Amino acid sequence: MHTILKGKSKEVTIGIDRPFVMIGEKINPTGRKKLAAALAEGNLDYVRMLAESQVAWGAEVLDINVGVPGLDELAVVKKLVEMLASAVDVPFCLDSANPDVLAAGLAAAPGKPLVNSVSGEQKKLEMVLPLVKDRGAAVIGLTMDDNGIPKTSEERLAVAAKILERAGQLGIPTEDVIIDPLVLTVGSDSKAALVTLQTVKLLRKEFGVNINLGASNVSFGLPERPTINAAFLTLAIQNGATCAITDAARLGQTVKAVDLLMSRDDNSMRYLKYFRAAETLRAKEAEQAG
Amino acid sequence: MHTILKGKSKEVTIGIDRPFVMIGEKINPTGRKKLAAALAEGNLDYVRMLAESQVAWGAEVLDINVGVPGLDELAVVKKLVEMLASAVDVPFCLDSANPDVLAAGLAAAPGKPLVNSVSGEQKKLEMVLPLVKDRGAAVIGLTMDDNGIPKTSEERLAVAAKILERAGQLGIPTEDVIIDPLVLTVGSDSKAALVTLQTVKLLRKEFGVNINLGASNVSFGLPERPTINAAFLTLAIQNGATCAITDAARLGQTVKAVDLLMSRDDNSMRYLKYFRAAETLRAKEAEQAG
Repeated sequence: MHTILKGKSKEVTIGIDRPFVMIGEKINPTGRKKLAAALAEGNLDYVRMLAESQVAWGAEVLDINVGVPGLDELAVVKKLVEMLASAVDVPFCLDSANPDVLAAGLAAAPGKPLVNSVSGEQKKLEMVLPLVKDRGAAVIGLTMDDNGIPKTSEERLAVAAKILERAGQLGIPTEDVIIDPLVLTVGSDSKAALVTLQTVKLLRKEFGVNINLGASNVSFGLPERPTINAAFLTLAIQNGATCAITDAARLGQTVKAVDLLMSRDDNSMRYLKYFRAAETLRAKEAEQAG
Repeated sequence: MHTILKGKSKEVTIGIDRPFVMIGEKINPTGRKKLAAALAEGNLDYVRMLAESQVAWGAEVLDINVGVPGLDELAVVKKLVEMLASAVDVPFCLDSANPDVLAAGLAAAPGKPLVNSVSGEQKKLEMVLPLVKDRGAAVIGLTMDDNGIPKTSEERLAVAAKILERAGQLGIPTEDVIIDPLVLTVGSDSKAALVTLQTVKLLRKEFGVNINLGASNVSFGLPERPTINAAFLTLAIQNGATCAITDAARLGQTVKAVDLLMSRDDNSMRYLKYFRAAETLRAKEAEQAG
């Protein structure tokens, strides 16, 4: 099953028989003071730099979230998406809890964007899915509902089934729904990662859908987070995850290594290309840092 | 199924329900000029330092190979094993292609050592297994035979079955045979890792035995080898590998992260303990380096 996203001209295919797709996570002001300030001041140059840097590090889709308290998000998201569309040719993943902001972003985005996100919550299903359908977009479906995040894989699968069913009823094809089985931090619950990994496996088997993960929650509160995140993403890819909202600069080489090991990279071409690009980028960043 | 190894007093249990066991790879002069020179000169202090350092970095078993051309290996292995037994309290993994050297090492080793290795080759089976049986040791069985390393998982499984059968006929219990499904470099064959990972899965399912891997062959000839090795080991552990002959300093944090993610580390205790020990070791090494 292939989820096809489109930018201005670039098309990205997400699928189990394709190299793993990284969705750049950095255009999201939550926990990023500098970006929050830049958005509040209308300093779009900084956001453009974040976009270009993530694409250079191998992000094939960019998440865009403008959630800063007090900001006129509707105006900002329109302006920002238009600017980014002229700066980078990748599909966008519009990320907001506010359906109006999603609608404004979807209207401004080129090609076929992704929506982050719907869930099994009644209100979300009712407000977000029609936007996705009207725009002909794809959507990430989180396996949580009005009762929160289920503890077991089976219950998360049931939520996924509900989202897929409701999407289908509206005429959104299954291949345009990417399920995110969610992960809690393993620091507070030792079974947290295992439940998510098991859910990935079952989603693959039962529905054959594409599967997204946020790869950094899992390590919250623990030291050496990139090591845990890299290991978690590696395990999830083997179980059938096909994309992740992540830090491409940190996890790119691991993702390329896993593609290589899973025989999705003939003659190591993509791995070697990424390695050379990363070397050049690191040299440039070191030079800029003085 | 548990493989129990013993040092002077320390016991190490290898099993799918236990934390992953790292066997320190560094006491092997192949490709290590400084160690080869130290062994040739009888400079056992350097070897002792290598042993202590690996144990500090989390190696729970130490591989010992004294294969230097022209060296009286029989005399050296005896002396070295005795010295190491007084320096570190971990089980040893005696590593030689020469059965006489294995026999001398086994005689000198305390507790219950591991033998690296037998294979499905007729001559190996005949010469190595009786040594293992007589000493009450455990043994690593490589899935290759007189025709070389089989291309498919099924053929590697057949070699494993032959080794297990021959061991059983001699009275070596199945839990004392650790199967190594071997990995070739993914740089020259894009399916190399996948075949090994599939073999790990089948070995676990068919025989339930413990499974060892050398985790560095896979990346031979490629850049950023530690990233590939870490990803490969992570994938293999998820499929059922239970120990690896590896560089503990490089892969220790990844191994602890995988144990944590697979819920083999309640309250992240081992992960955090390893992180703190690694911090201390890095500080000490930086200080020594001046």
